[in-house]
Amino acid sequence: MTAVYFEDFAIGQKFGSARLRLEAADMKSFAADYDPEPFHLDEAAAARNPLFGGLTASGWHTASVTMRLLVASELKPAGGIIGLGAEEIRWPRPVRPGDELHVETEILAVRASSSRPDSGLVTLRTTTFNQHNEPVQLLVSTLIVPRRPV
Amino acid sequence: MTAVYFEDFAIGQKFGSARLRLEAADMKSFAADYDPEPFHLDEAAAARNPLFGGLTASGWHTASVTMRLLVASELKPAGGIIGLGAEEIRWPRPVRPGDELHVETEILAVRASSSRPDSGLVTLRTTTFNQHNEPVQLLVSTLIVPRRPV
Repeated sequence: MTAVYFEDFAIGQKFGSARLRLEAADMKSFAADYDPEPFHLDEAAAARNPLFGGLTASGWHTASVTMRLLVASELKPAGGIIGLGAEEIRWPRPVRPGDELHVETEILAVRASSSRPDSGLVTLRTTTFNQHNEPVQLLVSTLIVPRRPV
Repeated sequence: MTAVYFEDFAIGQKFGSARLRLEAADMKSFAADYDPEPFHLDEAAAARNPLFGGLTASGWHTASVTMRLLVASELKPAGGIIGLGAEEIRWPRPVRPGDELHVETEILAVRASSSRPDSGLVTLRTTTFNQHNEPVQLLVSTLIVPRRPV
């Protein structure tokens, strides 16, 4: 496999991923550790919630699963996927037990790094879809990617 | 305890949290599940990484721990903390093994919801600090908060 450097990225390139199914037990386990709200922990409490009407994954669980799919995806920058942060993250609809997620990534921008001459910055939109191809998360983030060694 | 509704929030209000210490084992466990890059999984690989030079938490781990601190913080909207997404998330410096994190939240904006007359939108900046009071994450996000029942 050839290493992919900053110079290899171009606006409009797209990368796909495998699929990962989330069960109710996964959602409750993540929520117990990181987002212990009744509507993420318990089916009965979730059913009474006027916004959700049933168990949903924490948005941060969806974000974390998105990262897992991205790390194993076709996007393989040299040095790994190292994000500086995100310009936007949206959860337009809930993730439900049994949903099977995958991600599609598109390169939005490439630019030099002013602080690191050995690297460049790659901005990408990563959309996480459920099995009905409905987006459950929109993420725009920026990675730091090494330049090809001379 | 009195329930806190949309009408109770005002720009400039601040909320603090308890502290939570992250150990190397926590970082590696989260990374194994959600961000399995060598520099989040293994001290030796992390020490060789030119950007990190040692083990660091996944940014998504920091984000998830921030949510946990927020759920247990002084910020207690009626209905729980329900985010629609984030306008910005930054990781200005790494989280290292043994770091003790806490969050400080400030209300940036309050506005009506055009789609839900029973609720309002509250935008907040949540800064996650380490034990040296250095920011390790900046998050601007928007919550949906129920209006006071009439």
